[in-house]
Formats: sequence, structure tokens, C-alpha cells
Amino acid sequence: MKRKIIDMLKGAAGNFLSGEEIAEKLNVTRTSIWKNIQTLKKFGYDIESRGKLGYKLNQIPDLLLPAAVQSGLNTKIIAAENRMIHKISVDSTNKIAKRLAYEGAADGTVIVAEEQTGGKGRLERNFFSPRGKSILFSLILRPKCLPKDAPKFTLMSAVAVANAMQRFKLPAQIKWPNDIMFDGRKVVGILTELSAQIEKVNYIVVGIGINANISREEFPADIKKIAASLSEINGGKISRIDFFRAVLEECDKLYTTIKLDGFKKIFEQWRKYNITLGREVKVISAETGESFFGVAEDIDEDGALIVSTENGRQTLYAGDVSIRNS
Amino acid sequence: MKRKIIDMLKGAAGNFLSGEEIAEKLNVTRTSIWKNIQTLKKFGYDIESRGKLGYKLNQIPDLLLPAAVQSGLNTKIIAAENRMIHKISVDSTNKIAKRLAYEGAADGTVIVAEEQTGGKGRLERNFFSPRGKSILFSLILRPKCLPKDAPKFTLMSAVAVANAMQRFKLPAQIKWPNDIMFDGRKVVGILTELSAQIEKVNYIVVGIGINANISREEFPADIKKIAASLSEINGGKISRIDFFRAVLEECDKLYTTIKLDGFKKIFEQWRKYNITLGREVKVISAETGESFFGVAEDIDEDGALIVSTENGRQTLYAGDVSIRNS
Repeated sequence: MKRKIIDMLKGAAGNFLSGEEIAEKLNVTRTSIWKNIQTLKKFGYDIESRGKLGYKLNQIPDLLLPAAVQSGLNTKIIAAENRMIHKISVDSTNKIAKRLAYEGAADGTVIVAEEQTGGKGRLERNFFSPRGKSILFSLILRPKCLPKDAPKFTLMSAVAVANAMQRFKLPAQIKWPNDIMFDGRKVVGILTELSAQIEKVNYIVVGIGINANISREEFPADIKKIAASLSEINGGKISRIDFFRAVLEECDKLYTTIKLDGFKKIFEQWRKYNITLGREVKVISAETGESFFGVAEDIDEDGALIVSTENGRQTLYAGDVSIRNS
Repeated sequence: MKRKIIDMLKGAAGNFLSGEEIAEKLNVTRTSIWKNIQTLKKFGYDIESRGKLGYKLNQIPDLLLPAAVQSGLNTKIIAAENRMIHKISVDSTNKIAKRLAYEGAADGTVIVAEEQTGGKGRLERNFFSPRGKSILFSLILRPKCLPKDAPKFTLMSAVAVANAMQRFKLPAQIKWPNDIMFDGRKVVGILTELSAQIEKVNYIVVGIGINANISREEFPADIKKIAASLSEINGGKISRIDFFRAVLEECDKLYTTIKLDGFKKIFEQWRKYNITLGREVKVISAETGESFFGVAEDIDEDGALIVSTENGRQTLYAGDVSIRNS
């Protein structure tokens, strides 16, 4: 309902729309429209009310509210209809997503927050995310697949973000498996979790944290050297709402592709963005804790990294890769 | 405490032990001993009390109570100390185990029940389990491994049950991946679930349902053709407590071996018990839903089944195998 009101006010492009007109189109009472407008105002929507003229939308708030994000969103599964939940401040969106998934939340449900107080990256690393400057969300996916397939959805998510960046004319680089990099620093972190039986995945939760509008100065000293932000790449602020919408649309596209065709096209796109293959790398295996050097050759059909070393080919299913300067 | 009292009474081998003596050994008051004895009686322990003579254990109840199972249990991790929970009737022990694991239950925690009202086997099949005649439990494991390693703990569990059967001089046959069979019918079902990140497993829950003392006649008509029970193999009732203790001990041994040495020895033992390799099989892949025929060649390093078919070698990660009569 709120989304539909926003849609109409946006459609009016700065002109007034009467409450009567809106009420008629949405087939509800004028009182109901008035109540919803009050709620939208509380959320920070700058909506002007003027007697008989009705309502005019002056400014939408810089919050990733469903009403704003879903207005104009072109997806079939991801964040479609009532599959989007917004929170101001949470411990971690993955935690909420896991609970909701356990309780039966639908395929494609998205939990987005303005701030995470306990956000974690891979390998238990803290994730810096000041309020209103990042895009922090978790996707609940329910693909028909085995536990061993889960890492491929991480690659999918990285490609989705890279595709969204391309729509914003921002260069995108992916370091295996799923780090979006700029100038050797990380712009986006992805943390994938799963619940499964041996025969089938129950659900996958993909947590995506995007540094959107964080300036160089805002990053804490220890993070400054390893983190970058979309605004830095762009040379100016980006619209979080528009970028988030683009990521959701790209996720939806790729997820639908996977359901029809498998991962072939995802891998092709991943290779296009990747900055790892063909490079000398230092690898720390998550499996053994051991580190070794080699040349990253390719990804295999499981999305694992194949590294050729002095001792032959090694397959890295999970771990940390750093690219050595040549 | 209760376990220690049972230990002492069992040690007295049918003789009376005075409350004073027990209290002194356990360094508690005689009132505390008396209270614990009352609780044990409520659980069905037949304990005789006679004035100054004290207490004598006549009969322990046929319940898989921690006090009984842990008395004489030789394990380091599995069901050790307070890591055992007993319930009379539950929906499913896996469900409880997953909740406890999520809340942080320790590596090796065991949840055992006398009855399951909503027990499920693999592929959502119902699991028949009349009260007090099966051994129904779930293990919480927290190994350091990747999601792709989880299926191997299923093989481990099957080998543990087979080893326990060998201790009871019962022939054990494993059909890939983890079905314990007798005369072409299933004696034990195992359902493994996991929660993980891409880099590490959070926990694995192995649900094991053992048909212990269910006679041919007791199985419902549709299950009779596909199910067997330890008592049928044994030609008479077996002690659920003793068999359960043996399974826990074998799990503990194998789990410790894996932590030190990996899965090599597990696979060797699995091959020894298996009735699948070298046989013509019909396979239904859980991954694709497709079925095909071939010869089961071996298991690979992931525990997957390698099947040679007309169209070359196929690797089956999860699914259903039926052995064709030759």
C-alpha cells in the first residue's frame, strides 16, 4: 500500500495528487490514504499536504525502506512483494535471516538494515558499517541443491554486485571468491551461510555488506588501508536506494538463470570480473590452515580455485587469497 | 550424581550399601542421597531400601537414561559428562539437537528419546519408532571442516553402528551411504544435517534411529518388507542400554580418529562392511532427480559413490541406491 502511494506520488513528478484520486486508484478510503501518508512522514518522507490539492512528494529519506526500494523494482523472486524487511539497527542481518529462514521465510526474502552492531565478515572478522552509509542486507535463498553447491551462490552474489556497479559505470573487480575490490582495497564483503541435509540444502543466507558512501577519512585507521567505498570509486555520493535496487535486480536475474541453466553463465561472468586468475597468489587454506604460494589457474565446476604450485595442482575450496605484486 | 549412585549400587552387585557409605564417598549429605534415590525410583529404577542396611539395586528400567547409559561409558567427547539429554517423547531428536546446537551445545552432546512422534528419515520419509523399542538419538558434532566434508560423518556414524553390532556378534552390512541392512531390509537409518559457513561447519547433527527390539509382527504391513530389527538378527531381545553405550563408544573412537588422522581409517572400515561396491545398482540422484543404472565402483575421497555406467563414470554425492539381484 505504502509502496503504491509512493509509486503514484513519484509518478506525479513533483505535482500534487489529491487524496481522493489516490484513494480511488488504490480502491481504499481517503482516511486510509491519510493514515499511510502520516506513517511515511514519520519514516522521513517529505510529503507536502495542501488542502484540496492533496499531496506532493518533495524528498524521499535516505533509508532503504521497502516502500522506496520496491518502487520500480523489477524482480520476480528477490525482495518481491512482501519479501523485504527493513530494520534501523540490528546485531547482524544474517542472524535475523537465519532465524526467519528457520521459521519458513520464503525464497528471495531480503533483510536490510541501516546499521549493524555485530556484523561479521568471513573468518569472524568485524565489518565496519556506520549508520546510513553502507548497504547491509541478507538474502534468503532456497535453491534445490546440495551443500557442496553453496559456495557457488557466493560467486553469484559477487557477480550481481559487479553487474550493478557496471550499471553505475563503476569498474568492478572480483578477488576470489567474492571480494569486490578497488585499488587493492575491499568495497564489498559477502558472508554465506547454509542449513542443509546431506541430500538437500534447506536454505542459504547470503549476507552482503557494501561500503556505499563512506569517505576515506571516515574509515578507522586500521581499516583505511584495506577498505574502499563506492563513493570513492564514483568520485561522489551514490544513491543507496538506486544501487541497492540494482543489486537486487541483478541477483534476481542470476538466480533465475541458475534455476534454469545452472552456473555456467555465472562462472563466465565471474571470470570476466576476476582479478585473481593468472596471478601469483599467496593462499591460506581455511580447511588446513596452511599457507602456500602458486599461480591461480582457474575455478573448477564447484567454484573452487585451482592453484598450480611447486607440488602440483591444489584445489582451494575455501580460504584467503592475496595477490602478489609482480 | 545420580550416575555415581548407580555406579556404586551396580558395583555392590546385589548387596546393600548404606546411605552413610554412599554419602561419604560422594561427599554429600545422606539426605541428598535419599532425594536422588527417590528420583531414580520415579524413573523406574527398582531400588530396595531397608533401614540401616541401606539401598540395593534390583533392576534398572529399560529407559536410555543418562544415569544408566553413562554408568560404565568409556568416551571422551560423545555423551561425556553432562553432554547427554534424555526425553521420553519428542517430535524429532534432530529438531531438538539443532536448537541446542544453535544455542551453543558442546561438541559431542547427545539427545536421546524413547519415542519420536515426527521422526523423519532421509528424503522426508517417515521413520517408524514405537516407544521403548528403538534407540533414537542425535549427536551434535563440531568438527573443524568444510560443508563438503559433512557427508563423511554420515559414513562415520554407519561404521560406528556396524562396529557396535560386531561387538554384539551381529553381522553388519552397510548400503551406501549409511543404511545398515539385514536380508535386504533396513535396520538403522541415519539423517545428517548441518549448519555452516562456506569456510567452516558450525555444527553437524547426526540423527540415528536403530530398530532395536521390534518384532516382525510389530512393523506395519508396508514397512515389514523393508525394515528389520536388531532383535531379529540376534534371535532375541538385546539390551538397548548396552547397545546404545557401545554405539556411543564406537562413535567416540572414530570421531577421535578423524580429528587426529582424517577419514582414511573410516573409509577402510566402511569398505569392509559395505554391500554396495562391485554390485550392479540402480541409482536415483538427489541432485538431479534422474535415475540410472551402473556398477558401483568405489567411494571417492569425499565419500561420494563412483558408478560406472554406459556413459562413463558418474559421481553420486547424494541419493538413493538399490542393489539389483544378480
